[in-house]
Amino acid sequence: MTTPGAGTPLTVGIDIGGTNIRASVVDGTGEVLDTVQYPTPHSAVALESALDRAVRELADRHTLDAVGLAAAGFISRDRTTVRFAPHLPWRDAPVAKRLSERLGLPVLLEHDANAAMWAEYRFGAAAGGHNVVLIAIGTGIGAALLLDGELYRGTHGIAPELGHLQVVPQGRDCGCGKRGCWERYCSGTALAETAIELLATESATSPLAREIVADPGALTGRRVADAAHDDDPLAARVMADFARWLGLGLAFVGDIFDPDLVVIAGGVSSSAPLFLDEAREEYAAAVTGHGHRPLARIRTTQLGEAAGMIGAAELARSALIAGH
Amino acid sequence: MTTPGAGTPLTVGIDIGGTNIRASVVDGTGEVLDTVQYPTPHSAVALESALDRAVRELADRHTLDAVGLAAAGFISRDRTTVRFAPHLPWRDAPVAKRLSERLGLPVLLEHDANAAMWAEYRFGAAAGGHNVVLIAIGTGIGAALLLDGELYRGTHGIAPELGHLQVVPQGRDCGCGKRGCWERYCSGTALAETAIELLATESATSPLAREIVADPGALTGRRVADAAHDDDPLAARVMADFARWLGLGLAFVGDIFDPDLVVIAGGVSSSAPLFLDEAREEYAAAVTGHGHRPLARIRTTQLGEAAGMIGAAELARSALIAGH
Repeated sequence: MTTPGAGTPLTVGIDIGGTNIRASVVDGTGEVLDTVQYPTPHSAVALESALDRAVRELADRHTLDAVGLAAAGFISRDRTTVRFAPHLPWRDAPVAKRLSERLGLPVLLEHDANAAMWAEYRFGAAAGGHNVVLIAIGTGIGAALLLDGELYRGTHGIAPELGHLQVVPQGRDCGCGKRGCWERYCSGTALAETAIELLATESATSPLAREIVADPGALTGRRVADAAHDDDPLAARVMADFARWLGLGLAFVGDIFDPDLVVIAGGVSSSAPLFLDEAREEYAAAVTGHGHRPLARIRTTQLGEAAGMIGAAELARSALIAGH
Repeated sequence: MTTPGAGTPLTVGIDIGGTNIRASVVDGTGEVLDTVQYPTPHSAVALESALDRAVRELADRHTLDAVGLAAAGFISRDRTTVRFAPHLPWRDAPVAKRLSERLGLPVLLEHDANAAMWAEYRFGAAAGGHNVVLIAIGTGIGAALLLDGELYRGTHGIAPELGHLQVVPQGRDCGCGKRGCWERYCSGTALAETAIELLATESATSPLAREIVADPGALTGRRVADAAHDDDPLAARVMADFARWLGLGLAFVGDIFDPDLVVIAGGVSSSAPLFLDEAREEYAAAVTGHGHRPLARIRTTQLGEAAGMIGAAELARSALIAGH
């Protein structure tokens, strides 16, 4: 007698975040069997040692066949090298090859949004989709594309960059050097900034307004979402503004890809009841040819923060089976 | 001894425009052997009769094996039906099937920008490309995508709609019902509108300025381009504005698709020397991660107005050979 998932290779998926690295053993059904977590070291050498250590710790308890890494940044098209990662110490680093040599296991590298998309497609909110756009809304916006049932990585392996589409000429300054980028209006960071902007032009005496006046620097997107949940009127206006920008972006995505499904992920997605219906309406009104075309379904993530890890593990498993 | 292209099937490609229908016999090397042209009738019945007549006229002089139709509008995913075409009398019309029954030949239908892309890919400016975006700039903007070497048609067969991406909130009114759409700033129509706007806020005494003052309604994008060619200072400022908007759109396209190649087509492309270098510079500066990523090559159409017709014929030929 065998348990479900047994007999398939077990692989490790590692989400390499700017703060923590989390490594999980995942089976062929997408189930997470075991997880370890370390703080992310600040040097490339220490980071690679930490990855090595995480896998070895899991290998003590499981028979492992391959490793998948998920990282935010520019990944080479052959998925061996991190070209540039804003929150990690790697620059043109052949990470997959180096870790594979240390561990004696196949190692695959993937952009974290692509890995999350793959997990949602195989085991989550994107199951059954054909043309799917994943929009991960947190501090900024990450995105991934599944087109005709395959991850689309572009010519140079650079995942789709939707967060820095300029939606407002001469708009809010962005860390990317441009102005008016979509993620400056539609992200957790933007929630706080919109609240402060609204308060600068309109008087408001809600609990959130008083907090901002007392200490504007302490305001977070999370706090705005919580206040909106508690029916704070200022926070409600911020969420309505956010919903409009999200709907506009969904219309962009609809115009460009004509997807059957959009998955909203990232930290802000947990507040979806506060904005998703309004965003859907804005999208339906703003997509070109509205009334003459079917609309995409819009869903929220099922796998949440584990998606990148699960997807990296599943991609490593698929590559192993395909003999790559 | 055989001539090049002989022995391959001959097919007809028909470009069904709002003003004219043009039908050509095309061989397997993309060469146009024979062409007929009629004005586009205003009823669906008369339009289909005209298509029938065009093919029969060509069939009197050539042995034809299949027909490809190229039309602007929403085409069903199975490429048999025009769902909606703004400048044609068809609504949910199974055009390919009806014409095939009349002619006794296989008939394939394709969005005109997709057909043009396919022609450029097989025989023109996109040859050797892998991820290519075609941007046809005329009265408005049409677009097509070749992703991983295949035409990408989306979930519902609706070609990518880039012209109505909202690039200016509360910007210029658009016939689509929205405001600030990209094609309201980056099209032949936009050239005239920008000239009039500039003249409303700044005094100018150039030849073009005097013409506009005399009869603003007579101004065309073509006239602005011609004036820019003659070094008219107002027209030069209009072209600089156009180049900025094109560069911004190219940055959008670069961010979204990471293409290796962008082909600029449509009527405005014939004025490329007046704007393309500036647009390239704007694109290079505005694409996200500039300096950390390779840029796409940007080229202008090689096949010009014949591209849609040639592409439709070639798609019909490929389908025939594949036995579809």
